[in-house]
Amino acid sequence: MEKNALLAERNRGFFRAKKLLVLNVVSSPGSGKTTFIRETAVRLGARLRVGVIVGDLATDNDAAKLRTAGIPVIQITTGTVCHLDADMVSKAARQLDLDQLDVLVIENVGNLVCPADYDLGEDLRVVLLSTTEGEDKPLKYPPMFHSAQVAVVTKGDLAAAAGFDRAQALANLQRVSHHAEVFELSAKTGEGMNAWLDFLAAQHAAAQSERT
Amino acid sequence: MEKNALLAERNRGFFRAKKLLVLNVVSSPGSGKTTFIRETAVRLGARLRVGVIVGDLATDNDAAKLRTAGIPVIQITTGTVCHLDADMVSKAARQLDLDQLDVLVIENVGNLVCPADYDLGEDLRVVLLSTTEGEDKPLKYPPMFHSAQVAVVTKGDLAAAAGFDRAQALANLQRVSHHAEVFELSAKTGEGMNAWLDFLAAQHAAAQSERT
Repeated sequence: MEKNALLAERNRGFFRAKKLLVLNVVSSPGSGKTTFIRETAVRLGARLRVGVIVGDLATDNDAAKLRTAGIPVIQITTGTVCHLDADMVSKAARQLDLDQLDVLVIENVGNLVCPADYDLGEDLRVVLLSTTEGEDKPLKYPPMFHSAQVAVVTKGDLAAAAGFDRAQALANLQRVSHHAEVFELSAKTGEGMNAWLDFLAAQHAAAQSERT
Repeated sequence: MEKNALLAERNRGFFRAKKLLVLNVVSSPGSGKTTFIRETAVRLGARLRVGVIVGDLATDNDAAKLRTAGIPVIQITTGTVCHLDADMVSKAARQLDLDQLDVLVIENVGNLVCPADYDLGEDLRVVLLSTTEGEDKPLKYPPMFHSAQVAVVTKGDLAAAAGFDRAQALANLQRVSHHAEVFELSAKTGEGMNAWLDFLAAQHAAAQSERT
């Protein structure tokens, strides 16, 4: 863990030198991370070039989905390990042409517990909460939600069918992640995506001005 | 881990002496474990008496939901630990009046990775896969799905809205959990619950005849 903290800081320095904005995207399995990342990358298009590192226990399904959309992607398979660590990310990042990218998105293993303790050297930790999971998840997984700078409510298109209690969900996020920027969207329909993309572009611009 | 294996066997012996059928219910966060367990207990009613041990990192929301339905329940909060272990279950079980129960359901922490390695002394491991999570989850979390004797596809009522590919999901379950009994249901609407309850009653009866 202490070794991971050091390697994460090394990653952070490396990514800063490469002028990359780096996101660590975490959530439950099936909250829609891959679709969210794909739509983010595709919609940013030429505005900001996005590369992705994907972590899963097994399969390269997510990498294949992203690659089909023309996104540069490296898949990490962790075997039985329930999170990515800074060393895995460092090795995977070297396989991407980072000089051609503005934003590096790390899609962590689907898990609301283990990844909370592992800094990867990211600028922003982005936690997803899908409307079909239930509004109580921030209260039930406080370390993860508390550690995130951004919370994104996904699958807005399923909110009504799932009986999602939006007010309660936002209140729970406010309670556990009161410091976090909150976005509500559907990557599937595109609703709410623009506010998220504008935020990302502003974060990227701010990081650039800090680093030059 | 080795200590857990021994304690799990001790639990198994203890539960057998108490003539309990014990389920370890695992899934992603938000797959509907609590609603599934509540509906199982309520619908079994006088046929079989069900008690529950619930594991969460934080809150006793799930225990409160079950208690409101008249179900005997003990909540374990694990802090930052991503799974229950045999010792936690042993201590919690002692707080229930086991002689008044036929079935003990253990609702594990919502996590498709960590709980796979921890035997709790259960008779059946039951993994839930909700229609809103995506059909690829068995392939992406093979240790958990492979370790289960029963797989339950939940949230059938949301399958159409979520664009759930049922044939693909069943093929993926068949590939990773080919030995598992598969049920498809909606705890919310009740559809498909009877087949599951009949299976449970048959498992309980079989266990009783073995143990006398």
